[in-house]
Amino acid sequence: MKNLIVGQSGGPTGVINSSLAGVFLAAKAKKIPKVYGMCYGIQGLLEEKVLDLSKEIKGPMDLELLKRTPSSFLGSCRYKLPEADKAEAPYVKLFQILEKLQIGYFLYIGGNDSMDTIQKLSAYAGQKGSEIRFIGIPKTIDNDLAVTDHTPGFGSAAKYIGGTCKEIVRDGLVYDIKSVTLIEIMGRNAGWLTASSILSRGEDGEGMDAIYLPEKVFDTDRFLNKISNLQRSKRSLNIAVSEGIRLADGRYVCEIRDGRERLDPFGHRQLTGTAAVLADMISRDLGCKTRWIELNILQRCASHLASLTDANEAFAVGEYGVKAALAGESEKMVILERVSDSPYICIPSVAPVSDIANLEKTLPNQYINKDGDNVTKEFLGYVQPLVMGEQYPIMREGIFSHLVRQ
Amino acid sequence: MKNLIVGQSGGPTGVINSSLAGVFLAAKAKKIPKVYGMCYGIQGLLEEKVLDLSKEIKGPMDLELLKRTPSSFLGSCRYKLPEADKAEAPYVKLFQILEKLQIGYFLYIGGNDSMDTIQKLSAYAGQKGSEIRFIGIPKTIDNDLAVTDHTPGFGSAAKYIGGTCKEIVRDGLVYDIKSVTLIEIMGRNAGWLTASSILSRGEDGEGMDAIYLPEKVFDTDRFLNKISNLQRSKRSLNIAVSEGIRLADGRYVCEIRDGRERLDPFGHRQLTGTAAVLADMISRDLGCKTRWIELNILQRCASHLASLTDANEAFAVGEYGVKAALAGESEKMVILERVSDSPYICIPSVAPVSDIANLEKTLPNQYINKDGDNVTKEFLGYVQPLVMGEQYPIMREGIFSHLVRQ
Repeated sequence: MKNLIVGQSGGPTGVINSSLAGVFLAAKAKKIPKVYGMCYGIQGLLEEKVLDLSKEIKGPMDLELLKRTPSSFLGSCRYKLPEADKAEAPYVKLFQILEKLQIGYFLYIGGNDSMDTIQKLSAYAGQKGSEIRFIGIPKTIDNDLAVTDHTPGFGSAAKYIGGTCKEIVRDGLVYDIKSVTLIEIMGRNAGWLTASSILSRGEDGEGMDAIYLPEKVFDTDRFLNKISNLQRSKRSLNIAVSEGIRLADGRYVCEIRDGRERLDPFGHRQLTGTAAVLADMISRDLGCKTRWIELNILQRCASHLASLTDANEAFAVGEYGVKAALAGESEKMVILERVSDSPYICIPSVAPVSDIANLEKTLPNQYINKDGDNVTKEFLGYVQPLVMGEQYPIMREGIFSHLVRQ
Repeated sequence: MKNLIVGQSGGPTGVINSSLAGVFLAAKAKKIPKVYGMCYGIQGLLEEKVLDLSKEIKGPMDLELLKRTPSSFLGSCRYKLPEADKAEAPYVKLFQILEKLQIGYFLYIGGNDSMDTIQKLSAYAGQKGSEIRFIGIPKTIDNDLAVTDHTPGFGSAAKYIGGTCKEIVRDGLVYDIKSVTLIEIMGRNAGWLTASSILSRGEDGEGMDAIYLPEKVFDTDRFLNKISNLQRSKRSLNIAVSEGIRLADGRYVCEIRDGRERLDPFGHRQLTGTAAVLADMISRDLGCKTRWIELNILQRCASHLASLTDANEAFAVGEYGVKAALAGESEKMVILERVSDSPYICIPSVAPVSDIANLEKTLPNQYINKDGDNVTKEFLGYVQPLVMGEQYPIMREGIFSHLVRQ
């Protein structure tokens, strides 16, 4: 029997290592002789940075710690393979390494860019008559993958956002003064995360007073009018804004500030400062006290507040990926199909990666209100089941305990 | 028997409402007829904004929710009483209101400014022959109150900071690149909170690589040298910085940026942007990838991650305050005395507010290393017991549930 290799790619999520745990456990259950992990994704694999997962996960306690460890346990990359007909060298090298390790099953946990890797590798394998099976395991807090009902990682990020927004709303009520709090949330083109701030609403609080999504053009005059109207009946306002909201001329709102571009380690333009820009605008135009909060990377690494539903699904898609590969599937991504909302039932299945790779699923119109400044009840019905249940951290000396690579 | 009134003042903490719960339950146990809450502290009391706590806390479930509700349940203020010999009017009014409500016991949950209120009111009561007892209940995430071993609220903030810093450290390891993450932590003059980032260290990770406190002058050259040296042996660095660090000339580091002052709703200068300034500096001078994170107000409102030790102590000081008032104490604040580190034993007692009001306790030298860029083992021994144990939130539909005023 052939061996299995698994990698993690792209930005992490709070439950990305639950998928790794699912892959590992299913592979062990199926008696796959060696379960390898690639360090730093495909980029690390090209340098033969590989580890034996049995040496890392030595028992049930390690497995439980792994599930609760934020960030990608194996390390990640954002490396994109070139087209094989233009630059074959990396393919030749990769398949030599896979051959040497006697790999029969290649699983890659990632988002739309990572599915591009699965697509290219499986196409190349097809051309060369390789029998290696390539399966993608979905993960991204952004929830922007096509075909699947949602992506593992999104539920935990939504739970973090809903919960912390609720705590922030309460904090805003502490003084008897008029104030506006702007909360900046991740998601450059897709508003799923920002929309999830609706979860801060409950019988014990109104939550967000408005939600601005990247799917809709942002109009500063309408925004200031909205705030001004809301202030007539409410003292402390809370507004969720996506980092990616844009003006009609296409500029990002965060670019209004100083025109300066910030680049992240991969040369992508960094979109931060949207909430700060809007807070300044409100202070100036409405003469009102404001504050802004960037939820920042805790959205993707707050494993301590993981949704149990999400963690279990992340595990299940990993497990299912192994079964699919062993059943002979390839060039597929594991997806989640929602069978029912109430009770919530979601089952794993597979879909061709070609329907998913490089595509971005944004928030559909039925989830956005008519004015474009909030979400609908339908969206709440969609997101609510995904945040249910707690996967409590394992504590040591009062602080979360994690599993680290040997 | 006379009635009791309790208020909350200053910035909230994750467990400030546990103290309120402690006061309420102890007063009920002692058969005090009416337990009033002042809305928005002394400022609200001047406008007779008062509620009957029995109508808000209607059973054991309400009490448990109250303990887990962030922000001050009663609302807060930053109002400072004038000197009574210069402006007696507010005193006359306050004592009229207290008389009308038949108050015998006045409890105020707050920090050093709030203890000034206790001091002034009890001094005035003494002059006028009033028999009302005035007791301060300590709370502040800043841990900067004199005499007491620590302040309720600090332990939960320290737990939040230690835990989230640990999650951020892990996130920084995801890519195989050199990077520096700067984490900005609250505490303008006292470094207790920033120092607590040391809790991110464990057998499963090195935590912060350096910690910069407001107690020590910040030198940019030494800072850049330190980073540069650390980078020789380590890929991903994590640096905790206090929002209040200053240069030798007295300027705040965050003022290097653009010279612009930001004011908060009370006209205090806002100190944010320290981490961003330092990140820019590192990018420019060391040509290295950087990112910065402001932990922001979640430090004071993340009740979902409250330390059980802290929550229990917050409850206990509330309870003890009632007992002290009934025993005839006045012009005192409840303090915590540490009897032993291991096992950790801390007992409540009282101290004169005059030793506490308006004073600020900074981090003593024995808790700071020789180079002034980290903390000592002694500090870890001090802070560790304060973060032990979890007070889990009560969840509803996957999100924290809170108690709100009727």
